[in-house]
Amino acid sequence: MREGFHGELAELGQQLAAMCESAATAMEHATSALLTGDLALAEQVITADAELDEQRNECEERAQTLLALQAPVATDLRTVLAALYCTVNIERMGDLAAHIANTVRFSHPARAVPEPLNESFKALGELDTNMADHLCDLITDSADHGFDELNRTDDAVDILHADVLATITGDDWPHDVRVSTNLALLARFYERFADQAVSVAQRLQFAATGSMPVKG
Amino acid sequence: MREGFHGELAELGQQLAAMCESAATAMEHATSALLTGDLALAEQVITADAELDEQRNECEERAQTLLALQAPVATDLRTVLAALYCTVNIERMGDLAAHIANTVRFSHPARAVPEPLNESFKALGELDTNMADHLCDLITDSADHGFDELNRTDDAVDILHADVLATITGDDWPHDVRVSTNLALLARFYERFADQAVSVAQRLQFAATGSMPVKG
Repeated sequence: MREGFHGELAELGQQLAAMCESAATAMEHATSALLTGDLALAEQVITADAELDEQRNECEERAQTLLALQAPVATDLRTVLAALYCTVNIERMGDLAAHIANTVRFSHPARAVPEPLNESFKALGELDTNMADHLCDLITDSADHGFDELNRTDDAVDILHADVLATITGDDWPHDVRVSTNLALLARFYERFADQAVSVAQRLQFAATGSMPVKG
Repeated sequence: MREGFHGELAELGQQLAAMCESAATAMEHATSALLTGDLALAEQVITADAELDEQRNECEERAQTLLALQAPVATDLRTVLAALYCTVNIERMGDLAAHIANTVRFSHPARAVPEPLNESFKALGELDTNMADHLCDLITDSADHGFDELNRTDDAVDILHADVLATITGDDWPHDVRVSTNLALLARFYERFADQAVSVAQRLQFAATGSMPVKG
């Protein structure tokens, strides 16, 4: 029974890691679509989001079946519950990437990001994608120092997010309110994606150690 | 044992309802602070958010203890898991009210909302507050038709949110990018609050019926 349980738990981990991989790909593609105006790639991100929702349902069902049939306790219970919480966060990461892709679609044929901010959004996209990739590693390798690293990356994302807001609300910013509000919302999507990734790392660390690390 | 379990479950429900009440109060106060520029009230919302986080921790611990000690199955398991998911959403509702209060603080002594949009934000605040209040009733009375009603209210919130965005990106909008990006983010906080409330209603309905209603 216990061996079956741990096999099931390992499969749940594989599913979670696959969700993180999907979220990383979604963010990478959404950012690429944003910076190049690639409408087909944006549509692909939006379509792929439905698959991530489906992955989440499968994860949830597996976790709930584990709880019902195996009634785990202590570390095993913490691990299953962490997986349940993480599915919510990772699905949300996919939603946020899809929001970025939607902005590409609505802005088309114009570009949503004016040239002076290209580098900032490129950096935001890379940091977010790396965070999602890092989560895959944390889930499959059970490394226990992931939270601190992700927390530091999140700080870097927060700084970039604040920089974008400062730029678009600066006195010499030449673009109109329509472009600027889109940029403010876009920057927020990147910032929230990073927050969700930190929440996942926090839950993973709690599952591994039994104590909840504090977000920076 | 089962009787003890259902007593514990009822207490968990009371805690969840109390969280919804806190979220409703936070939204009501945040909106009032936003429309009147009341800095002290805004500070109060921000302080109260830490209490909601604490309420969430208590709910989580109670739910986890129930799972560990009672190993519920079927409807009971669904109910405990629904409570776990709902705590995440309701805590987030509190965060969003606190974001609104923070905007009041940063804008002070200026008002974040120019007069022509006062009515829209007042309506958003009322709809969101009513949704959180409605969740209290759903949790304590176990009414099963709450999801559809909340879904319809969410549609009304979405329309107001879109109206605000259309207004601030219209050709005759006289305010600058700084004011307008704040308004776009504020409108999004209200829209997300409503989304979270619908997610709570969705989980409650799932717990009650075993089938997950589809968001509109």
